[in-house]
Amino acid sequence: MSLAVYEFPLNEKVRTYLRLEQLFIQLKQSAQAQQDWQFMSFFEALFTLLDLLERLDIRNDILKDIEVHEKNLVFWSQHPKIDSEALQAALQKILRLRDQLKHSKKVGVSLKEDKFLSSIRQRFSIPGGTCSFDLPNLHYWIKQPLDIIRKDIAIWLHEFDLINEAIDITLAFLRERGRFMEITAENGFYQGIADDKSELIRIQSATDEGYYPMLSGNKYRYAIRFMLFTAKENGSSQVSEAIQFNIASC
Amino acid sequence: MSLAVYEFPLNEKVRTYLRLEQLFIQLKQSAQAQQDWQFMSFFEALFTLLDLLERLDIRNDILKDIEVHEKNLVFWSQHPKIDSEALQAALQKILRLRDQLKHSKKVGVSLKEDKFLSSIRQRFSIPGGTCSFDLPNLHYWIKQPLDIIRKDIAIWLHEFDLINEAIDITLAFLRERGRFMEITAENGFYQGIADDKSELIRIQSATDEGYYPMLSGNKYRYAIRFMLFTAKENGSSQVSEAIQFNIASC
Repeated sequence: MSLAVYEFPLNEKVRTYLRLEQLFIQLKQSAQAQQDWQFMSFFEALFTLLDLLERLDIRNDILKDIEVHEKNLVFWSQHPKIDSEALQAALQKILRLRDQLKHSKKVGVSLKEDKFLSSIRQRFSIPGGTCSFDLPNLHYWIKQPLDIIRKDIAIWLHEFDLINEAIDITLAFLRERGRFMEITAENGFYQGIADDKSELIRIQSATDEGYYPMLSGNKYRYAIRFMLFTAKENGSSQVSEAIQFNIASC
Repeated sequence: MSLAVYEFPLNEKVRTYLRLEQLFIQLKQSAQAQQDWQFMSFFEALFTLLDLLERLDIRNDILKDIEVHEKNLVFWSQHPKIDSEALQAALQKILRLRDQLKHSKKVGVSLKEDKFLSSIRQRFSIPGGTCSFDLPNLHYWIKQPLDIIRKDIAIWLHEFDLINEAIDITLAFLRERGRFMEITAENGFYQGIADDKSELIRIQSATDEGYYPMLSGNKYRYAIRFMLFTAKENGSSQVSEAIQFNIASC
């Protein structure tokens, strides 16, 4: 049985973190493109990320979260049974990140000043609007040798290093808060009550059984429904059997 | 010296053909993705194509063009010096395509009926709106074994086979109408007069000299400007030297 983890945020902040995390993954995966027009998806991901980051003040949220982690780490460091070396390393990392974030420019500023990127960005909001006659300079760029293309991409990606690391660490701390427990959803349905500090529900579920989980709810309570990937002929799409799955409340 | 061909349509019809051609290439290249989130660009290209094809009545334009090709082929077949076997093969192909196109459903209809595609399509118009919590069914699909993913993709791509072949042939005929001639653009500028039947200007230009062509104009006259890929410090971005390039009017 192969498993996938589905993550459902219970508040807007974590929702944004997860969105950014996925876009960072898409950006890095598309940066490895081998063929000319595959790089279009790199630019799609890049501009979507910039749009999101310009609209949000993500830095303050992250700084607040990092301060909480810091307090927790200091608290745990006084616990006698804790591996203090690993903890000190984590604390150092957190403190460095906090300092760097505090003194960093708003993410994306230097990419906004990049003349090539600015000249092509607008056309990417038009579906199918990035043909060679729309953007001959993009056509020129794409037709360059791969090592030049990769060099440019490395420079652009570098802009996100700090915020990407900060989000990775913040989400790692968040995910560590919950432990997976096995639960049964009778008739493919399960209702849960989120505890005070829960910000994220993680569900581990099979990817080869033909169903996937959906979650609706808020920070107080939530409902999980298992849906059939391919709806039955009678139209019903919720699983009617009992389903075993793992859940972690983080 | 490495060369790239830049193509500039002189009317709306050819503009649409080129747009579709590029989207077909993007679609096929992104279908070869190896990693999970790279498939997002496959869906981006797929839905952009469907949007375009639903908006346009491309079939009538292509049918008209194919009839012109047919007449030309019949005309040439009476010429004594022509390889009649190759010509007959081309004619057969054209006639088959014309028949298939005439009797085909509107492109994209069967994809519109695909429940999975319909359920995820809308979220793709929201930048960054395709996270696993937005679309858990997409998350399920992406986490499946690669051979299942490839099977689905092959079925979806099949929908475009006919229109893709028709556009490829129509553009091939169009491109064959023009022969490249060497021309010099003094001060990086060249002005041309399009002849009656010209629908497409093709420019062959170096990709390692730091400049690219831009074309503005219409079906009567056009201007080509060679622009510096990286603008000079004094801000000027048009090339000031004489530039040798190849041009074909099709």
